[in-house]
Formats: sequence, structure tokens, C-alpha cells
Amino acid sequence: MSAGKLLGVGVGPGDPELMTLKATRALGEADVIAFFAKAGNASHSRAIAVEHLRAGVTELPLYYPVTTELPSCSSGYRDAIGDFYDRAAGEIAAHLEAGKIVAVICEGDPMFYGSYMHLHTRLAPRFPAEIVAGVSGMSGCWSAAGMPIAQGNDVFTVLPATLPEAELARRLAEADAAVVMKVGRHLPKLRRALQCSGRLDRAIYVERGTMADAKMIPLTAKPDDDAPYFAVVLVPGWQTRPGAEP
Amino acid sequence: MSAGKLLGVGVGPGDPELMTLKATRALGEADVIAFFAKAGNASHSRAIAVEHLRAGVTELPLYYPVTTELPSCSSGYRDAIGDFYDRAAGEIAAHLEAGKIVAVICEGDPMFYGSYMHLHTRLAPRFPAEIVAGVSGMSGCWSAAGMPIAQGNDVFTVLPATLPEAELARRLAEADAAVVMKVGRHLPKLRRALQCSGRLDRAIYVERGTMADAKMIPLTAKPDDDAPYFAVVLVPGWQTRPGAEP
Repeated sequence: MSAGKLLGVGVGPGDPELMTLKATRALGEADVIAFFAKAGNASHSRAIAVEHLRAGVTELPLYYPVTTELPSCSSGYRDAIGDFYDRAAGEIAAHLEAGKIVAVICEGDPMFYGSYMHLHTRLAPRFPAEIVAGVSGMSGCWSAAGMPIAQGNDVFTVLPATLPEAELARRLAEADAAVVMKVGRHLPKLRRALQCSGRLDRAIYVERGTMADAKMIPLTAKPDDDAPYFAVVLVPGWQTRPGAEP
Repeated sequence: MSAGKLLGVGVGPGDPELMTLKATRALGEADVIAFFAKAGNASHSRAIAVEHLRAGVTELPLYYPVTTELPSCSSGYRDAIGDFYDRAAGEIAAHLEAGKIVAVICEGDPMFYGSYMHLHTRLAPRFPAEIVAGVSGMSGCWSAAGMPIAQGNDVFTVLPATLPEAELARRLAEADAAVVMKVGRHLPKLRRALQCSGRLDRAIYVERGTMADAKMIPLTAKPDDDAPYFAVVLVPGWQTRPGAEP
């Protein structure tokens, strides 16, 4: 029996039309489709890809453990998450050992801030594995906004809003262009860091960037500090630089 | 007569299968296909998209001016490039004024270090414009390499190799993960900056990342300092961080 194959398939930022031709082909060839989801919730990545799943394909949902009672820096949290990825990799390995093609569908780009990596590092040393690159979530945001983000010799940086305020401000001041992720409850701190770094006036607040109900407004026009965990702030570099067009 | 429409269409990093469904639809609907190319050379972006061009579609090649005799920081260079983008935007505007749909095909992702932005800033204030996000060139590289690049709260940075050595070293040391672009003749300096920042051992050198003849090797295994302008160096963040899987 031939060995199976693991596919990490990026399905893009949300609009099903932003899937690649290669992703749709991979989903058509897979024997097993695996996807992450929160317990009790539908999977976002499955919803993006649903039109391309073969009738009767085996589906393998991977439900994140409920860890809301554990601080994310605690060893209890790390153990629970690590055990979860171990179990998920074990379930996928059983299919791969049976010679099946297993496609793990991933929102955005699998190797760029994606949960798939936790499976890849566990399975790629043992089985043939291939990545299908996808359009990243942040690219979906700046494209939907029609916003040039970086050009030429710009330094571009992705920052988590979890950083301390002074560090956020310093890193924002040093980057020509930036995307700040995981905004959520950090928005008041992020506003101060943007102000301090001189970047507040060009910051764009984005919620559900590539969904039909996307919300994109200049951060200075947002009247409150309510933000979901997955909200992002874009700080475009280019249009305010010397030599940029009007 | 209805107004035309400008489409900035990302066609991904090189593999035609990494085009999105939306990009192929846009190319099928366009009256005019525009693309950048070096004078005397075939266009890379057109080659990626060629299977999806309608028979008889109007093609509008935009040939970069030859500026090899001018330093890129000189006013002569900036004027020549600025005039070129002005003329290209004018040619496209004539089609848009005639009610045509003009698709500008772009390697990678149009708003992320792409020439299309120069047209967008000139034309989007006057005509309806839409961006079709694409898989970026760097995503094509790390995906082809099967390399997790950034995870969790990693700080990720894109740096041009043109920066001074000390600044490159400092920025590399401060980032968890990085991509260095435009390597070319800067490779000896970049090697020293990677060494100084403690990142040399995990740096991967990539040429023609998503082409059939791609070359990817640990930078420490590359015996010479010959590198084309578009070579990149990937510095993955995740696998060496505390708590990362083996």
C-alpha cells in the first residue's frame, strides 16, 4: 500500500472566490478533509471551501479544547493545547498510514500564523506533505480597502497588540508600514502607541475584513474601544512617503 | 455610456495554479489586459495568466523605461519612472473613459510591493477600481519550502537588503521572523548582519521561489555570494521559540 499524503491547503481570507485553483483541485483529490473549529461552532475554513468538497468525502473536524479558564501563558494551557495537537495529529496519521490523502483546510495562508503548522511539524517528518499557499487574511483586508500597504524599500512589520505599550510605539515608529493583529481589548493601549509614534492619523481599523459585513474606518473615526479579538489595524506606509503620488 | 472599471488582479507568485478563482473570472471579463514588462522581455505576469486570457482580448503592455544609466535615488531616475507611470495611467484612462474593463495583471499581491499601486493611486480617484488579492511571492517561497514562518505572537518583518549593515543586524535581532528582499549584490553584507544578529543558522536562501527550477538552500550551505536582485532570504521564527514543537 502506498503512503498517504498530507496537504496543508490555504483557502484564503474569507471570500470563496479568493481560493486558488490549486486549493480547489486539492480538495477534489482528498480522501479526508480536516479542519479546525471551536467546540460548538461551525468551522470558518470549511464554510469557505464547502462548495468544493466532494460528496461523501470523509470529514474530520478538529475541535479546539475549551481553555477559557486557563491563562494562555500558563503551563496548564500549553499542556491542553499541546495534547490537543498531539491527538489531532494522531487521528490524521491513522488516515495517512492507511494510504489516504488528507487535506487540512486553513483560513488564509497555512504557514503564516496558522494552526496547521502545529500539525505540519508533527507529521511532515513522517509523511509526504505539501503546502498550498493561500491569500493571507491581512492581504484580504488591504485589498478590500483598496489600500497600497508597502512599496519599494519600505520596512513592513506585523505586530501583535499584546506587546507592551512602549514597545508597540517604538516598533510602529520604526516601521514604514504595519499590521497590528489581535486588537481586541488592547485597543485603548494601541491608540496611545499609535499617537506616540505619529501613526494614528493613517491607521485604519478593520473588522471581518473580507466578509460581506466588513467594517473599515479610520481609527480616529471609531467612537468607542469595542473591538473583537480578530480585529486588525492597518498602518499603510506608502502614500505619505517622499515621492509617493498624491 | 457607462464608466469603465479598473481591476488590479493579483496572479500569485508564479505557479499558474496559485491564481485565485476571482482572478481567472476577472481576466475572462476584461476588455483590456495590461501588464508591466522590461523592454525587450516577456512579461512574467502575463506568462502566469496566459491560459486565462480571452482570445482576441486587447493587450496593453507597459514597458518600463530603461534607466540603467541613472542611480535609483537620483531625480533623473524618479522623473523617468514618474513620467512612465503617468503615461501608462493615461493609456489605461483612455480605455476606462471608453467604458472598458481594464485588468492590470500583477505578480503576487497587487497592494504589497507591487508596481500596480502607481497606477492605482493615479486612477482610483477618477474611476471605479477593485483589487483582486493574490498569493504573495514570499508566501509562495515559504510554502514551497514547507517552512512555518510565523506563529502566535511572533513579530514578523520584511526588510530590504539595501539597508545599512548595522540597521539590518539590529532589525533582524528584534524580529522573531523575517524576509529579506532584493538580496542581489548585498549578500555579503546580509551574511554579516545575520551572523551578528544570531540568525545566520536559520536563514534560507531562495531563488525563483515558486518556479520549477527553484533553488532553496540554507544560506550557510551556499558556497558563493552570487545572487540575483530578486533572491530572498527567509528567517523563520517559530521552530526555535520556547514551546515550539520539535
